[in-house]
Amino acid sequence: MRVLGVDPGLTRCGVGVVDGTAGRPLAMVGVGVVRTPADAEIGRRLVLIEQGLEAWLDEYRPEVVAVERVFSQHNVRTVMGTAQASAVAILCAARRGLPVHLHTPSEVKAAVTGSGRADKAQVGAMVTRLLRLDAPPKPADAADALALAICHIWRGTAANRLQQAVAAHKSARTQEPVT
Amino acid sequence: MRVLGVDPGLTRCGVGVVDGTAGRPLAMVGVGVVRTPADAEIGRRLVLIEQGLEAWLDEYRPEVVAVERVFSQHNVRTVMGTAQASAVAILCAARRGLPVHLHTPSEVKAAVTGSGRADKAQVGAMVTRLLRLDAPPKPADAADALALAICHIWRGTAANRLQQAVAAHKSARTQEPVT
Repeated sequence: MRVLGVDPGLTRCGVGVVDGTAGRPLAMVGVGVVRTPADAEIGRRLVLIEQGLEAWLDEYRPEVVAVERVFSQHNVRTVMGTAQASAVAILCAARRGLPVHLHTPSEVKAAVTGSGRADKAQVGAMVTRLLRLDAPPKPADAADALALAICHIWRGTAANRLQQAVAAHKSARTQEPVT
Repeated sequence: MRVLGVDPGLTRCGVGVVDGTAGRPLAMVGVGVVRTPADAEIGRRLVLIEQGLEAWLDEYRPEVVAVERVFSQHNVRTVMGTAQASAVAILCAARRGLPVHLHTPSEVKAAVTGSGRADKAQVGAMVTRLLRLDAPPKPADAADALALAICHIWRGTAANRLQQAVAAHKSARTQEPVT
């Protein structure tokens, strides 16, 4: 499974592509950041994010896109920008018919570090280890995007296994002879 | 000036097209709502909003798009959806090179009723009167979209006049003989 992780933001939108399935070593395929100038108008910034993400989708052809779920508990202004950038990411993926999955920051941290309260340094360190990189990807938005992709591969596969197990169980039950 | 007003929302995205300039009677050109099913995935909903707004832009060819500015003081879940829908509206307009202007709900209410605290019924009544309609447009999101367009025509023109006056003043000053 190839996953594009997107850590949405207007100024820096982190993107990371990871290949993998649960239980096997993961492989980083690409990582980077789509940037837009802070002094540009909001419309221009959203167009630049769309163009940047389209280029990533064209080049890496992911099967799934994982986007960080935005909460509004923090700074209002920042959250609006994050929500708008995430909308563009979700739109770009859905327009291509790609499945989009949202994961909360806690889910992502818990997936890669074991703790939903891990700090950025810990997430960066685990991403570096899990993908066998020489150094943590910079900026943190890029590392977070890779963590999102890893989170999705592990959680997605676990969810799939559960669904398969349930389906197998149901199938077995319906195949029981009705005597 | 032809303005497309957009009252963003995931379930109902109000759209209204108004022709006019300040000081002259306004004319409604079109009004409606882009709807998406509440049980659809977020990606699907954003794609439907994009397609709906593109159809309005294609049909009515506005010169300017006015979108309600989203604040996060209300229900968190609703605000996120509104921010995402507004991002799609801003993106659709900016991609065509159309100027996008954001107006707060208070600005819109104050523009059409004289009070920033007017209720929906009052806004609907004034939109009906200003556009010489037989009845208030339904649902309220459609009336709000028309109010946004009217607000933009009046404020935009006022802002233009102020800019022109300032420019004329500056120009007159620089043209004064330096004696």
